Amino acid sequence: MPPRSDPSCRKRPGLKIMKPLSVNSTRLLARLQELGSIGRDTNGRLTRLALSDADRQARDHLVAWIRAAGLEVAIDRIGNIFGIWGGNKYGSQQPVLLGSHIDTVMNAGIYDGCYGVLAGLEVIQTLREAGFVPERPIAVAAFTNEEGVRFAPDMMGSLVYAGGLELETALATRSTDGAVLGQELARIGYAGDHAVGFMRPHAYVELHIEQGPVLEHSGIPIGAVEDLQGISWQRIMIEGQANHAGTTPMALRRDAGYAAARIMTFVHDRAMASKLSGVATVGSVAFEPNAINVIPARATLTVDLRNPNETGLQEEENALAAFLSDLETSGDVKIHVEILARSRPVTFDARIIDLIEEATLKRGLTARRMTSGAGHDAQMIASMAPTAMIFVPSHKGISHNPAEFTSNEGLIAGANVLLDVTQHLADAS
Amino acid sequence: MPPRSDPSCRKRPGLKIMKPLSVNSTRLLARLQELGSIGRDTNGRLTRLALSDADRQARDHLVAWIRAAGLEVAIDRIGNIFGIWGGNKYGSQQPVLLGSHIDTVMNAGIYDGCYGVLAGLEVIQTLREAGFVPERPIAVAAFTNEEGVRFAPDMMGSLVYAGGLELETALATRSTDGAVLGQELARIGYAGDHAVGFMRPHAYVELHIEQGPVLEHSGIPIGAVEDLQGISWQRIMIEGQANHAGTTPMALRRDAGYAAARIMTFVHDRAMASKLSGVATVGSVAFEPNAINVIPARATLTVDLRNPNETGLQEEENALAAFLSDLETSGDVKIHVEILARSRPVTFDARIIDLIEEATLKRGLTARRMTSGAGHDAQMIASMAPTAMIFVPSHKGISHNPAEFTSNEGLIAGANVLLDVTQHLADAS
Repeated sequence: MPPRSDPSCRKRPGLKIMKPLSVNSTRLLARLQELGSIGRDTNGRLTRLALSDADRQARDHLVAWIRAAGLEVAIDRIGNIFGIWGGNKYGSQQPVLLGSHIDTVMNAGIYDGCYGVLAGLEVIQTLREAGFVPERPIAVAAFTNEEGVRFAPDMMGSLVYAGGLELETALATRSTDGAVLGQELARIGYAGDHAVGFMRPHAYVELHIEQGPVLEHSGIPIGAVEDLQGISWQRIMIEGQANHAGTTPMALRRDAGYAAARIMTFVHDRAMASKLSGVATVGSVAFEPNAINVIPARATLTVDLRNPNETGLQEEENALAAFLSDLETSGDVKIHVEILARSRPVTFDARIIDLIEEATLKRGLTARRMTSGAGHDAQMIASMAPTAMIFVPSHKGISHNPAEFTSNEGLIAGANVLLDVTQHLADAS
Repeated sequence: MPPRSDPSCRKRPGLKIMKPLSVNSTRLLARLQELGSIGRDTNGRLTRLALSDADRQARDHLVAWIRAAGLEVAIDRIGNIFGIWGGNKYGSQQPVLLGSHIDTVMNAGIYDGCYGVLAGLEVIQTLREAGFVPERPIAVAAFTNEEGVRFAPDMMGSLVYAGGLELETALATRSTDGAVLGQELARIGYAGDHAVGFMRPHAYVELHIEQGPVLEHSGIPIGAVEDLQGISWQRIMIEGQANHAGTTPMALRRDAGYAAARIMTFVHDRAMASKLSGVATVGSVAFEPNAINVIPARATLTVDLRNPNETGLQEEENALAAFLSDLETSGDVKIHVEILARSRPVTFDARIIDLIEEATLKRGLTARRMTSGAGHDAQMIASMAPTAMIFVPSHKGISHNPAEFTSNEGLIAGANVLLDVTQHLADAS
């Protein structure tokens, strides 16, 4: 039992590590592999879409592990699974919540989401086995339909849990294959009784693979995620005039393709030159008529702007709008803009971020404060509780792909940092 | 009968206009409309692909008009139709050759090609009716398959005639619908007996709509075409790396789409900044995977470079190659280039160009020396005889489209300049 009431510990500022605990890495890695074996097709490809039979099988495995670890299982009405450990009954005291999701994209890797859920369970199980007595409950969550492949929107379980989407609306959602979410939830046996949001967390910490190249590239094992980028998606359509590529002098052209290229280089060069962590991507483009010897009459492209700062994101949007306005005049083209998606940035809890950094240092490792460029359940839960994320390196930044990979050493380091942070959060007032 | 032996005329330098002749504009315009009515579908759209039934019907009309004008008809083995007028039998003396083509693209206008053939016939008929006695024969040609829509390559009849493509190869060509050219030629009754190239022209003059906006934009009615651009077509494929648009920092990207945009702006800006008449177009592009939130792994684009000067065209090709080489390094991408087509520029005959300018001035009009950005039969015949082209304005530069339009005034002005130039060439030694 750790000397959590030792006054000398209380006096130390910041993180208190009462005992050099470590997770059971063999158990954690074995569960990751076992969960990753569920939902394979005959070619060995992993696809475990939300509320599919494969998802049910994975949920059943998880619930069995939670029970075996001595935790109470609770399922809410959107199918989020909770494993709860605490001397005090939930509701009477707010728990430290860990978690992520176990649904996958098509042809997925085994780490995205599953790592956060299984590490959360592992942390609780390690603490429990070590005789640690937390001052508040500790729970692990597997949120429903984070990937959003079969049912939109993504991060649905955490969004409904945090009150950002009506339960009834979510349950009525139709999948790409015509199934209704509520019916699928009942079919697989995970339409739970608990009200969504029944347990307001004291804090939420999500451990996740980075899904980007920053940590590996910098040789740093732990990311202390301090914010999550806001996203601005726009579709830009440019109307020029089709004309003969040979007979139309340069000065008389209304070239929609050239205008598109100008936009592409503008957004890229501006993000590149910025000292901030915003990014800009043009991922898709189409020309019409798209013939080698015809000046494009029409070009359509998408712009994906992301920024951890709302003011910064708005600045980028405004700069693009001003550029498009100038381009309409200088390029003699008409430009139409359609907003496809817009989310505000999320700033995580400064105290938890500090705890992550301190825990990492105490483990003799280096942490890097960073921004999450991808969406996570943490961004939804952040609206109801102090939240932060811990990242571990993704090899080559690859994710949503069978080549998704984090070394065992990296996975264990992340779980141990989560262990320390959880212990502190569950113990502190 | 014009005073062509009048010594006072002989003394004047340059063009001699012996009599203020003018073409029969009513007849010319009526024939243009009549030819343009052949090959209409039930929606009224004009499509008269080479060696189709519609082409046969148009050829039959043309041959009837040639015979009615008192000219001898000759068909060669590639189906080129000639209408020949001359006191001296062809072969003994080289004719002044006028002409163009009467096949069309799909959903075409009525002027492209047909104008040059019918104006050539009109010029001969006018001269004959006026009692003009030329010193050498005058002939009009309708070359087979200029458009190249059904059978490749385009400008085939003139290319075979000038010896640039073997007759047997051309006859064996298969169409997009599987037909063999030689069989189609026999089927429609235009597999003639004359050897290709049987009549080497003294000079060749092709009157054509501009198919570009230069004349209309400058308010000048006649173009004296002094050269025809060389064409360089390349397909450029860029290999970068697909990555998450949110989680991949700008500095760690290998963005094939951005590299494509850099190429697009490079070729455009370079052509725009050049004082010369070269043009550059990126008409088609494709990204892979072409998703809004994925950095493009691959981008493919085409580059169409045209220049009236071979050295200039090579300079543009070299500048592009150097840019691509730098881009491979700076953008951390691999670039593959495929040459799709390459033709050298053609320089037309200076003396005929002078005649066109002088004839235009004598008609009280202005001529502009210019470059042809499109391919024409003239570029093939230029390899066997002194050649030049006369352009008339195309409204908005539109061609290969039902909206193709040149005013009657413009058409008549062009035909009268052709008349004067022909008269001079047929008369001079």
